[in-house]
Amino acid sequence: MTANVGVLLSGCGFLDGSEITEAVLTLLALDQQGATAICMAPRGPQAAVVDHARGEPVTGAARDVLTEAARIARGRIRDLADVKAAELDALVLPGGFGAAKNLCDFATKGAAATPQPQVARLLREMHAAGKPIGAICIAPALVAAVFGRSLAPTLTVGADGEAAAAIVAMGARHRPSPVTECVVDARNRIVTTPAYMYDTRPADVAIGIGKLVTAVLAMLPAGAGKVAR
Amino acid sequence: MTANVGVLLSGCGFLDGSEITEAVLTLLALDQQGATAICMAPRGPQAAVVDHARGEPVTGAARDVLTEAARIARGRIRDLADVKAAELDALVLPGGFGAAKNLCDFATKGAAATPQPQVARLLREMHAAGKPIGAICIAPALVAAVFGRSLAPTLTVGADGEAAAAIVAMGARHRPSPVTECVVDARNRIVTTPAYMYDTRPADVAIGIGKLVTAVLAMLPAGAGKVAR
Repeated sequence: MTANVGVLLSGCGFLDGSEITEAVLTLLALDQQGATAICMAPRGPQAAVVDHARGEPVTGAARDVLTEAARIARGRIRDLADVKAAELDALVLPGGFGAAKNLCDFATKGAAATPQPQVARLLREMHAAGKPIGAICIAPALVAAVFGRSLAPTLTVGADGEAAAAIVAMGARHRPSPVTECVVDARNRIVTTPAYMYDTRPADVAIGIGKLVTAVLAMLPAGAGKVAR
Repeated sequence: MTANVGVLLSGCGFLDGSEITEAVLTLLALDQQGATAICMAPRGPQAAVVDHARGEPVTGAARDVLTEAARIARGRIRDLADVKAAELDALVLPGGFGAAKNLCDFATKGAAATPQPQVARLLREMHAAGKPIGAICIAPALVAAVFGRSLAPTLTVGADGEAAAAIVAMGARHRPSPVTECVVDARNRIVTTPAYMYDTRPADVAIGIGKLVTAVLAMLPAGAGKVAR
């Protein structure tokens, strides 16, 4: 038996969707560590479409979050609205501005952020079932928007700074972390790693995400996710 | 000194651009093996825009190859037309239909394919300077379109089949390869690996691309690309 791990995507590209390197390295680490990835995304328009060569929004452009996320998932993607926690052993959220623009409105509202309803629903279902959640880069801000007041989880968004202050204002605790490490909140079963919260390199992101996946899978009941390839 | 390795992208998404997993795992392997990646793509409209959730072309949609490729490159990308072989120690081409639709017309013309002029120019400059070229997945078909008749290179596109027959018809030799291996044409300094020519998993693609990058860097003059992180 292998663990079924949901990977919640938010588009395709770090300025308006999922951070591509983080998403791919999450899928790689899950496969290398014997888990099966189940990619999902919400349907609906992206909050923005950003020209990644210029770094500027494209006025009047519209793209669908799930349709773009399908590029990373190679077409194998499910509508978040149809995914229940009962199907999953764990859930991992890559970062990118999509996590802060499409899965919640942290990018514009900061500590007053509200999560997208289906995102909040699945995260709460996972936690209620005692199933672990991993969050990468800025995705811990989304975790704070859902669980900050109720659980006061310990999270990392890298170094202390503006993003860290915002998640603290949402009721979470912040623990700084280098890119090659992850922060484990064992009580709440939440694991976070900073990845591209730093101006960093893919080899170091791979190390941090690899450790996050290891920590998430280690929280599963004995047997699940421990099957070597 | 580290080796500067060009990574030639063709969009963002395996059905109309670069295969994202292959592109990211190329950038990862280059970083892990001490090389510096220089991402590039041609400017100009994609041959198609494909909805990756439905697997169907989007009628009337238009996207620019370089602008989309910038999503994978996190905004750090150069116009292929401005890149000279003199700046590079080696060049690697990830796959995806973009390599067969935007960098040449192999997807529609098969063995009668013509390479995009700037792609042909850079590949010929690289070969003339004795610099190695790596090609992944269907990108070897592009290599065959440029060098098939002149060099008769030995390439792999995975198992023997339609794609292999087409590159043979272009004058290349085909050698079958499993996903976790690469084929080295030492005489022509061309290395190929099949990656998602198979219905495969990211962990195995990472192994094959890792070996391709190792073989490409091993062809560099002593010193270049050998500096450990």
